[in-house]
Amino acid sequence: MDQKFELSQEQMAEVERQLEVLKRGIVEIVPEADLKKKLEKSIATGTPLKVKLGLDPTAPDVHVGHTVPLHKMRQFQELGHEIQLLIGDFTGRIGDPTGKSETRKQLTDFEIKENAKTYIHQFGKIIDMDKTTVHFNAKWLSKLDFADVIELSAKVTVARMLERDDFEKRYKSGQAISIHEFFYPLMQGYDSVALESDIEIGGTDQKFNLLMGRQLQEEYGKEKQVTITLPLIEGLDGVRKMSKSLNNYIGIDEHPNEIFGKSMSIPDDLMIKYFELATPLPMNEVRAIEEGVQSGDLHPRDMKIKLAKTFVEMYHGHDEAVAAEKHFRTVFSKGALPDDIPEHTWAGDDEKWIVELIVDLGMLNSKGEARRMIQNGGVKINQEKVDDVQAQIAVEDGMIVQVGKRKFVKITK
Amino acid sequence: MDQKFELSQEQMAEVERQLEVLKRGIVEIVPEADLKKKLEKSIATGTPLKVKLGLDPTAPDVHVGHTVPLHKMRQFQELGHEIQLLIGDFTGRIGDPTGKSETRKQLTDFEIKENAKTYIHQFGKIIDMDKTTVHFNAKWLSKLDFADVIELSAKVTVARMLERDDFEKRYKSGQAISIHEFFYPLMQGYDSVALESDIEIGGTDQKFNLLMGRQLQEEYGKEKQVTITLPLIEGLDGVRKMSKSLNNYIGIDEHPNEIFGKSMSIPDDLMIKYFELATPLPMNEVRAIEEGVQSGDLHPRDMKIKLAKTFVEMYHGHDEAVAAEKHFRTVFSKGALPDDIPEHTWAGDDEKWIVELIVDLGMLNSKGEARRMIQNGGVKINQEKVDDVQAQIAVEDGMIVQVGKRKFVKITK
Repeated sequence: MDQKFELSQEQMAEVERQLEVLKRGIVEIVPEADLKKKLEKSIATGTPLKVKLGLDPTAPDVHVGHTVPLHKMRQFQELGHEIQLLIGDFTGRIGDPTGKSETRKQLTDFEIKENAKTYIHQFGKIIDMDKTTVHFNAKWLSKLDFADVIELSAKVTVARMLERDDFEKRYKSGQAISIHEFFYPLMQGYDSVALESDIEIGGTDQKFNLLMGRQLQEEYGKEKQVTITLPLIEGLDGVRKMSKSLNNYIGIDEHPNEIFGKSMSIPDDLMIKYFELATPLPMNEVRAIEEGVQSGDLHPRDMKIKLAKTFVEMYHGHDEAVAAEKHFRTVFSKGALPDDIPEHTWAGDDEKWIVELIVDLGMLNSKGEARRMIQNGGVKINQEKVDDVQAQIAVEDGMIVQVGKRKFVKITK
Repeated sequence: MDQKFELSQEQMAEVERQLEVLKRGIVEIVPEADLKKKLEKSIATGTPLKVKLGLDPTAPDVHVGHTVPLHKMRQFQELGHEIQLLIGDFTGRIGDPTGKSETRKQLTDFEIKENAKTYIHQFGKIIDMDKTTVHFNAKWLSKLDFADVIELSAKVTVARMLERDDFEKRYKSGQAISIHEFFYPLMQGYDSVALESDIEIGGTDQKFNLLMGRQLQEEYGKEKQVTITLPLIEGLDGVRKMSKSLNNYIGIDEHPNEIFGKSMSIPDDLMIKYFELATPLPMNEVRAIEEGVQSGDLHPRDMKIKLAKTFVEMYHGHDEAVAAEKHFRTVFSKGALPDDIPEHTWAGDDEKWIVELIVDLGMLNSKGEARRMIQNGGVKINQEKVDDVQAQIAVEDGMIVQVGKRKFVKITK
């Protein structure tokens, strides 16, 4: 990396242009000077940079939070660089040897392959999978023997490892850390050695592991990777990190109307962050929206519709985006019923307790949920709110049951 | 180990007898109750216990300090148990991956084999090698792959490992501990799993590693070994641990006269400890000597001659022991010249500077040493002390040069 390249005016401008694109939305580049040098080398020699993203081998159910690093990969790809998707199948094959971790259960080869297919299918909506290389780290990690592992672990000190935030907290509070846990950062770092990655992308929670790759590459005599960290995006509640378990997420495989409706519920002050981190909208357009909303020239609601449409278009295509917008405007803007209410042929009693009716129609999963939804005013029969949890409903042909803002069923008898 | 055995009166007496023999000179048995249970099982079922001693694969130059655990092994062997000598060739083959440790340099297969032969030859003077099994841990350790290593390291926590004295001190003082150093106790422990050892013997400095074997055996579903720790014996200075680098040792391959002379220089107050830990003299005889010396019935000097003779007899046989005693008595007791002075045919100048004479005769290695020996009054020509460092000596046929207490040369021309 100490080699100097002579660049033309044009090439120097290209370096600056790429740097500007790549700095979009990031938290930190370590070190930025090295990224510039790598870009100079890449442009001077016409060699794409190798950009790594590591993935868990557990079943993916990709949501907008996961797409933040993918959008960074997409930018690299559009600038002509090579994307390396690294699937950590080795850890998946091992599972958790203490048997304590549910999330690290042992996976079969079949499960790992299926999960990889799901990744590739879903990621293909954001990055060009034909130009992406997919790697499985069992290829090299399963070949290491005890002597190799000792050599690897000799590269890092215990004190360095205990600097990692979560390790430090656990060690100080007396919570057990098994020695094998030290291997996960070492393995992730060794993957960068094996792949000779130039750059590794990850969330801010990955910073320690990304830097481990940089350190190990140096120890193994390779050019050190640059690490780029990205923010963890807040979910629909606007407070906590987007995650499936908190149910504050937008899944990219969800129904277009669901994606559209959920997007409309994003808090106003997060809208620009979502545009910046989770869409390919050019940065000058994002800035124009930001300024327009601030000055009052643009209405936040219209911009959120633009965001919602962008999401649906990315994940389901243009036509679905148009349809979802139409559906949304019909249902919510005008208070009217949507055009495409699913029908349910009722074969049950003519009179039914409202709570059981909702569950029997499959609109909610439990009586408890149904009861709460009624109490919160979220249940309507023929557009009339049902307040009474005890209500008995006369079930009639053509009756429309609505649960929450977006679920409708039309009964046929 | 929870199984109970019905023992006859006689068998119970045998358990007690063995326990008494085995408790000779030890620091600690962890836990003693388990040792008793293992002996009961062994005697009830007629199955010898497997007793492990781990050895470094570096070139051995066995001294009396090393023989302390060997004497414990000998006791086990005499009681009918099985000795497992474990040579840590795996670590020897790896060396120190950081390249920092001189003592842990990488050894070739040939060096390891030669070192093992030397061990077997020297140890054969104390234990019956025909009834001893010798194991090399590369046999199982080199077969572990990364997944196995992760499984192994998952058994132990970082906090537990940092409890080891030297790790704790280094961690607290900010000295680097490489992660691979955690593997040495794990490997030593895993050896006990592989060998299914019942008992492991070591110096007090090995306690942590011995207990690691106990812990890992339990984790791998084996019967837990009992650990027996022995004191580290002080050297001839009476203060510091016997070691080659401190030059306070008695090597078991040294010349009989050297062993005898060195033994006579052991401080009086360590004599009983040497008898107890480093000779096979029955314990009732050791106690009798202790009491005899205390009461004044026995002269310490006579008892030290007994100790010196015991050492020479063990390492060179009875005849050499008798000869060494005679040599010692001739030279030191009567101040007379020994019978067997080596001759040196002098072909040099007729007159020679005393310092050069000593070096040319090969009695000391350097002029500096020779000069100091003269200044300390340690040089005699024909039993007359030479005080003058500048003295010119007329070299004559039959002349006797003495350097220190035990080196003599007779010149022939």
